Amino acid sequence: MQFHVNGFHPGSPDIHTIAKGYESIQGELPEEVDVLIIGSGPAGLTLAAQLSQYPEIKTRIIEKKAAPMVLGQADGVSCRSMEMFEAFGFAQKVLKEGYWVNETNFWKPDEKNLENITRDTRVQDVKDGLSEMPHIVLNQARIHDMYLELMKNSPTRLEVDYNHSLVDLEFDEINKEYPNLAQIDCNGKTKTIKAKYVVGCDGARSLVRKSISRELKGDREGQAWGVMDVLVKTNFPDIRFKNIIKSANKGNILLIPREGGQLLRIYVELDKLKQRGESKNITLDRLIEASKEIFHPYEIDVKETAWWSVYEVGHSLTDKFDDVLESEIENKNPHVFIAGDACHTHSAKAGQGMNVSMGDTFNLAWKLISVLTGKSDESLLHTYSAERRAIAQALIDYDHKWARVMSAPIDNKTVSVKDHFVEGGTFTAGLSVQYEKSILTGNNKYQNLAKGFDIGKRFHSAPVVRLGDAKPIHLGHTVKIDAKFRIYAFADSSNPMDISSKIYKLCDYLESSEKSPILKYTKKDEDIDSVISVYSIFQQHHHDLEFENLPSLLKPLIGKYGLKDYEKMYCPDLKNDNDIFNIRDIDRKKGCIIIVRPDQYVANILPLDAYEELEVFFSNIFLLRD
Amino acid sequence: MQFHVNGFHPGSPDIHTIAKGYESIQGELPEEVDVLIIGSGPAGLTLAAQLSQYPEIKTRIIEKKAAPMVLGQADGVSCRSMEMFEAFGFAQKVLKEGYWVNETNFWKPDEKNLENITRDTRVQDVKDGLSEMPHIVLNQARIHDMYLELMKNSPTRLEVDYNHSLVDLEFDEINKEYPNLAQIDCNGKTKTIKAKYVVGCDGARSLVRKSISRELKGDREGQAWGVMDVLVKTNFPDIRFKNIIKSANKGNILLIPREGGQLLRIYVELDKLKQRGESKNITLDRLIEASKEIFHPYEIDVKETAWWSVYEVGHSLTDKFDDVLESEIENKNPHVFIAGDACHTHSAKAGQGMNVSMGDTFNLAWKLISVLTGKSDESLLHTYSAERRAIAQALIDYDHKWARVMSAPIDNKTVSVKDHFVEGGTFTAGLSVQYEKSILTGNNKYQNLAKGFDIGKRFHSAPVVRLGDAKPIHLGHTVKIDAKFRIYAFADSSNPMDISSKIYKLCDYLESSEKSPILKYTKKDEDIDSVISVYSIFQQHHHDLEFENLPSLLKPLIGKYGLKDYEKMYCPDLKNDNDIFNIRDIDRKKGCIIIVRPDQYVANILPLDAYEELEVFFSNIFLLRD
Repeated sequence: MQFHVNGFHPGSPDIHTIAKGYESIQGELPEEVDVLIIGSGPAGLTLAAQLSQYPEIKTRIIEKKAAPMVLGQADGVSCRSMEMFEAFGFAQKVLKEGYWVNETNFWKPDEKNLENITRDTRVQDVKDGLSEMPHIVLNQARIHDMYLELMKNSPTRLEVDYNHSLVDLEFDEINKEYPNLAQIDCNGKTKTIKAKYVVGCDGARSLVRKSISRELKGDREGQAWGVMDVLVKTNFPDIRFKNIIKSANKGNILLIPREGGQLLRIYVELDKLKQRGESKNITLDRLIEASKEIFHPYEIDVKETAWWSVYEVGHSLTDKFDDVLESEIENKNPHVFIAGDACHTHSAKAGQGMNVSMGDTFNLAWKLISVLTGKSDESLLHTYSAERRAIAQALIDYDHKWARVMSAPIDNKTVSVKDHFVEGGTFTAGLSVQYEKSILTGNNKYQNLAKGFDIGKRFHSAPVVRLGDAKPIHLGHTVKIDAKFRIYAFADSSNPMDISSKIYKLCDYLESSEKSPILKYTKKDEDIDSVISVYSIFQQHHHDLEFENLPSLLKPLIGKYGLKDYEKMYCPDLKNDNDIFNIRDIDRKKGCIIIVRPDQYVANILPLDAYEELEVFFSNIFLLRD
Repeated sequence: MQFHVNGFHPGSPDIHTIAKGYESIQGELPEEVDVLIIGSGPAGLTLAAQLSQYPEIKTRIIEKKAAPMVLGQADGVSCRSMEMFEAFGFAQKVLKEGYWVNETNFWKPDEKNLENITRDTRVQDVKDGLSEMPHIVLNQARIHDMYLELMKNSPTRLEVDYNHSLVDLEFDEINKEYPNLAQIDCNGKTKTIKAKYVVGCDGARSLVRKSISRELKGDREGQAWGVMDVLVKTNFPDIRFKNIIKSANKGNILLIPREGGQLLRIYVELDKLKQRGESKNITLDRLIEASKEIFHPYEIDVKETAWWSVYEVGHSLTDKFDDVLESEIENKNPHVFIAGDACHTHSAKAGQGMNVSMGDTFNLAWKLISVLTGKSDESLLHTYSAERRAIAQALIDYDHKWARVMSAPIDNKTVSVKDHFVEGGTFTAGLSVQYEKSILTGNNKYQNLAKGFDIGKRFHSAPVVRLGDAKPIHLGHTVKIDAKFRIYAFADSSNPMDISSKIYKLCDYLESSEKSPILKYTKKDEDIDSVISVYSIFQQHHHDLEFENLPSLLKPLIGKYGLKDYEKMYCPDLKNDNDIFNIRDIDRKKGCIIIVRPDQYVANILPLDAYEELEVFFSNIFLLRD
């Protein structure tokens, strides 16, 4: 986190100076906005929090509810989402407040007495080395709060407009700049807003989706589950672990401990209850009773129920996440997007809903920013639907399998549940997401230069030591929500202080060649790392390199004073035997370039001297600047 | 962090429910208060933040300045202070925002050209294993902010009364309950307040100190230094490291990088400037000019000066930190205390000032709380002056030595500075503080049972795994600012599930014997861990223990629902080869009891079956309860 770069400012660095034009309290909806976000759930807020950092983008986010959520709904935060929160700057808060899922325990019917359950096995929840972040459980409302605070402290002081609901969305093809006409009920008064882009984060019954004539297709009538957040007295020994409990004939439970040391979430499979003719008229008492039966011989005494619900969500998906027909892609750019439950629904049991929704708009946010700040052509926005629909499809496939496994008849072995759980570990951690080859994702021509970084998957962080101040940090944490592309140049085995070394030459090329993508796509009055930020990771111990003799591109002058940036060069953490070149299997002889997208995904891997391929790659993403 | 224990509450768990009687905004000073704190620097706020958690204690804190500090003064946060911040709950925020001192570099005159400086050597700043916390640099104002936020979110919503200054402090020996009469200028109006206790955190010119007729004695006319917080352009390669720079004949500099990646603090030794007849009329330009000369051949271009000052603080100390004469200790209890600069001053160069001041009131806070909540006799308060004066004396001795080393004439080797620095590492980390034998600190009879925990020193944290949920945590982080004593029972090699094991028997004794200090000093309507909280650390892997078969004292029922506490039992972190029994050299055969004070210091080490010594120890601290 760099601050005071443009002069000392007292107070918290998290609270940005208010941008010009945003000094007064956010008023009524204006006539025209750049981005209109419908819905303030995880998808809407992930987008709004990022856009709020850009005063040049006029953003508004509306919510039909009267106030922020305080209770219930999702609570699982995958490792991948935690990594994303790190870029937003609030991962540490979530780590402190949330429950850490360390192990998952499996319970099965006791063969000696089928009325009882007995512990079958324990599984470490996140495999070692999968992520630097744990798997966390925290009330969705608190995640919302983190985003809302970020917005409140942003240069635009963006707030959600509560009691505002979309009534109608129409399209004015003649108005090229503001093609969307959104009719909004604002606290009872109707107002029409013109918007460049509309993003529907308005849930499974999305009006935005309907406006672009898309449908959720799939088996919406899925299995019914009851869910309750409770405080209990119990003698069940694993109550502070995640548990998957299968009873012989009383049903199944998924138990998720919650933040604070006492709160629990209990999911109860409702098929068994429905057989008894209670169908959807399930009461809380019935849920508690069913839980007691499944937990037998352990006792559960519910002292307080903070929230409960019965839901029956199946798996469904729309064919596309924007307003452009497949056949029109060449001729038309999208102006309406849908995200989260508006375009895909799934069961809650794999704990993916909130995570995938946030992943949707984390993918979209930087693209909208790139287009709206003039860095990229609008056609870049086609990649949103292409990339995220494939991910949603994969989730639904996984979820189907998971639901089948969970509800399979008991034959006195739960091994299949456990095996499915272990197999799916990378998936549920959110780390199996891999974008396919496109203008944003290279092919695997040079994958062997860094086998530990999969092209198309997220940039897997590893420990390094910062050359400028010897601070031990995680390399992945250099990515912030600033819509920048990043080039991580892993040095080859030569001396990087040697001006004939590949690293030195690459930096010289990027800093001074007229073909350099950095020079081509960065405005002259912007800092040189404003569009593409270059980092280098050397193989030497940080004591064996001389800061003053390393390439000047890696010590760029930034901000109004042109102060030197000391946070671009890194060395392996040799003291703790955590050499990133070993951990991520990087070719020591050749080194490589890893291009990382603003949303933390590995876009491409290239040799250190593949200047032409570098040029081609960025030419597909950025527009020439003055 | 446990929350939702007494029912689910939406929103941030850091924001406490307002206590009864504190619903309205803090008004004018009342006629009577329990604790009146004079001064809102680090000492005053460390005390106020802790007292603010107790609605039953009427606390006010006054400050003669008009508003919170935003700039300047101290910035060094020792490892020990970071450990203390962890108990307050804001260590992670400071870690995120502050500069980490990882290495200190030493520069000396270049033998080939004495006009130039050259790097002599580099030293790791905090020795491995000394603390789980790094050495941090952060603006004192931001540390204040963290405390102020804690107060704002506390059950009492305590705020500092700015524009309030102490005019006079008198003593009314006849009023046993409120013996202090403080005359206060409140925004221009004078008011007299009665206070049970007055704590003077009012700096080197303390009026509270004068009121109790104590003097700062020592060499107040110390060496003069200039200090400035600046943003610079420079080619000095180590600018983001802490540096101690000795030039041949242009003076010395202590350079401390600051938070945010760019800000720096430069201390310039002023003796050299004074020789040129400029004495105290030093200007900022002169400071910058002197810096440039010392940095030669490197260039320093100061782009902005956020703050600067010239100071000449020597080493001084009062004879006692309270209002009771040495000769009266047996017959009289203290009612006025002084802390921080009010009772000891020293140079800024060792970075100790803020840390020792906070340490003073961290020592005093729990004692005042224990007395004011009826747990302890007022005579406990004598231990404050006894313990903290010895620490201040040790600091001054160290500081004297440090000043001599820094200002020693150059004979072309700075090795003595470096050696002194390395030797003093534990000292400057704040970890050499060791309280002497007293009612609060045992003798070293059983020190050999746990050689890695020094009696009288702070409880040195180490990693463990929590049995209840397999979470990897730091054992020391179980200490919170709740004024509780803690018993950490490290199990012997036997099976703790065996009711004849020493651990089981100890727990039975503590839970049910009429001699048990827990039963004697805890009220019947309080949770059993309210006064003394018992933890156990077992030698087994957490999979090899059955939660349900371990002693009930370690699963106490807490809060209004009597919910089970799952955070009292720990196992070694065997997976990462971090066995706390090895790391802290605990006798595996015998195990031991470690008694830890509310301020994180090791009070005593005892065998697991030393019931009588346990009884005697606590009988000196606590009063019998109903």
